[in-house]
Amino acid sequence: MNIGWIGTGVMGAAMAAHVQKAGHELFVYNRTKEKAEALVKGGAHWCESPAEVGKNADVVFSIVGFPTDVEGVYLGTSGVLSARGQCKIIVDMTTSTPTLAKKIARAAEEKGVKSLDAPVTGGDIGARKGTLAVMVGGDKEAYEKALPIMELFSSKVTYFGGPGAGQHAKACNQISVAGTMIGMVEAMLYAYKQGLDPEAVIDVVGSGAGGSWSMNNLAPRIVKGDYKSGFFVEHFVKDMGIALQEANAVGLSLPGLSLIHQLYVAVKAQGHGRSATQSLFIALKSLSEKEDTK
Amino acid sequence: MNIGWIGTGVMGAAMAAHVQKAGHELFVYNRTKEKAEALVKGGAHWCESPAEVGKNADVVFSIVGFPTDVEGVYLGTSGVLSARGQCKIIVDMTTSTPTLAKKIARAAEEKGVKSLDAPVTGGDIGARKGTLAVMVGGDKEAYEKALPIMELFSSKVTYFGGPGAGQHAKACNQISVAGTMIGMVEAMLYAYKQGLDPEAVIDVVGSGAGGSWSMNNLAPRIVKGDYKSGFFVEHFVKDMGIALQEANAVGLSLPGLSLIHQLYVAVKAQGHGRSATQSLFIALKSLSEKEDTK
Repeated sequence: MNIGWIGTGVMGAAMAAHVQKAGHELFVYNRTKEKAEALVKGGAHWCESPAEVGKNADVVFSIVGFPTDVEGVYLGTSGVLSARGQCKIIVDMTTSTPTLAKKIARAAEEKGVKSLDAPVTGGDIGARKGTLAVMVGGDKEAYEKALPIMELFSSKVTYFGGPGAGQHAKACNQISVAGTMIGMVEAMLYAYKQGLDPEAVIDVVGSGAGGSWSMNNLAPRIVKGDYKSGFFVEHFVKDMGIALQEANAVGLSLPGLSLIHQLYVAVKAQGHGRSATQSLFIALKSLSEKEDTK
Repeated sequence: MNIGWIGTGVMGAAMAAHVQKAGHELFVYNRTKEKAEALVKGGAHWCESPAEVGKNADVVFSIVGFPTDVEGVYLGTSGVLSARGQCKIIVDMTTSTPTLAKKIARAAEEKGVKSLDAPVTGGDIGARKGTLAVMVGGDKEAYEKALPIMELFSSKVTYFGGPGAGQHAKACNQISVAGTMIGMVEAMLYAYKQGLDPEAVIDVVGSGAGGSWSMNNLAPRIVKGDYKSGFFVEHFVKDMGIALQEANAVGLSLPGLSLIHQLYVAVKAQGHGRSATQSLFIALKSLSEKEDTK
């Protein structure tokens, strides 16, 4: 099958490599061409625009940065849906808004194209290992057709319902992550401040009722002083903002997420937008340090 | 060895049963005598006061409700330390304040008794199975002597340092739990409100970067409508209050814990003090329901 691939960042490049390895013909576009080089060397066809990808591929996958990027990729003047051609199914895997997912689904339908919103979780490690989890919303038939391709880079693909349902499921994931992050970071701050052995704390807390993926995987990075490896703060701020906006739209109050979102806005404001989410530790530490000097 | 046991609630009774099974002579006291019946039938000696326990036992363990109860047990007029006798080591396993742990350690020292603060995590299931984790502070030599007894009901015993260090480690645990609870509950609220299959959400979120013990163990109880099984809200409110007070005392700002503590004060105020911590779901749902009726 001819597969289109738009977005070859850390996640996208690793995922597309699995598709390429399985023997599919790849048609690739990325804003920064250099990041697609490995795929092109491996035989992928470089395209000059999303439209050109849509003209050549049966199924187009995208994983880019922000909802505005997604909108450009599909609905822009040189977007996938601007040109007629091969494309029967589009699959956006960016963590974006359910509202945009529905808008794209409607626009696609008008052109006889089926649309899926299919954000992923599992990080760069999951992308490299091909063990991502994919949360899918949109046309059920298109889901069944795209499933064998998604399984090339995933160990769990779940269908949640119509357009936007995949994005809603991803929002649940990010809401849960937000909670585990504040809990983990404040527990570590407390541990350091009270002079406890941080590794012993991670060992005990991480294996019991206070345990979380964040405690087991990101707290050790804080101990090592590694604030670069992991998921970008600016993307997390975006994801939490989407969840809050969608919750607000249906009259759902999420006080915890709201505070955590604002704290991450502060993390970003302190210059850590392109650092990993465990940088919350640095930002919260800065709230307390003045007390140390008294 | 003669073992004293004060506090035979859900946790204490199950833990003491493991000690009894191992062949130790037990001297038991509990505010409500009936709750010690199974142990007494099994051969434990009933004592009329903590002082009587202290007179007869080499090592006294306690696990009661609140710090004021702990203070009464050890420093009260008929407390363990009020009478001279056998007792060489006291081990309080209640989740209590590091400040009280230090106070008891000083009072014990004056009477030639060694003290440990050794709160546990792992819940009623861990107590029954004998797989609790114990976080220990206090005299190192006393820790080594008490260790074989603690191992009868634990799978992990960690020494964190001098008096109060066990309580500080437990505070880390509860801070982390607080984060996982708000994340899990708000994710579930969002899932229901957006019409997603809650079990599919737990399955995907629980196995990825948003995963936590709370998501995997307590979210399914929300789906079943079970708000009784688990850890009491009123105890959790107490634990978070202790952590906040101790953090404040060393100039540490914990904005996440502070909000979550206040939300749990509301859960308790709504009449769920003796319900399990997943009741946060009910309380937060009540914030949003009015929007449903518009």
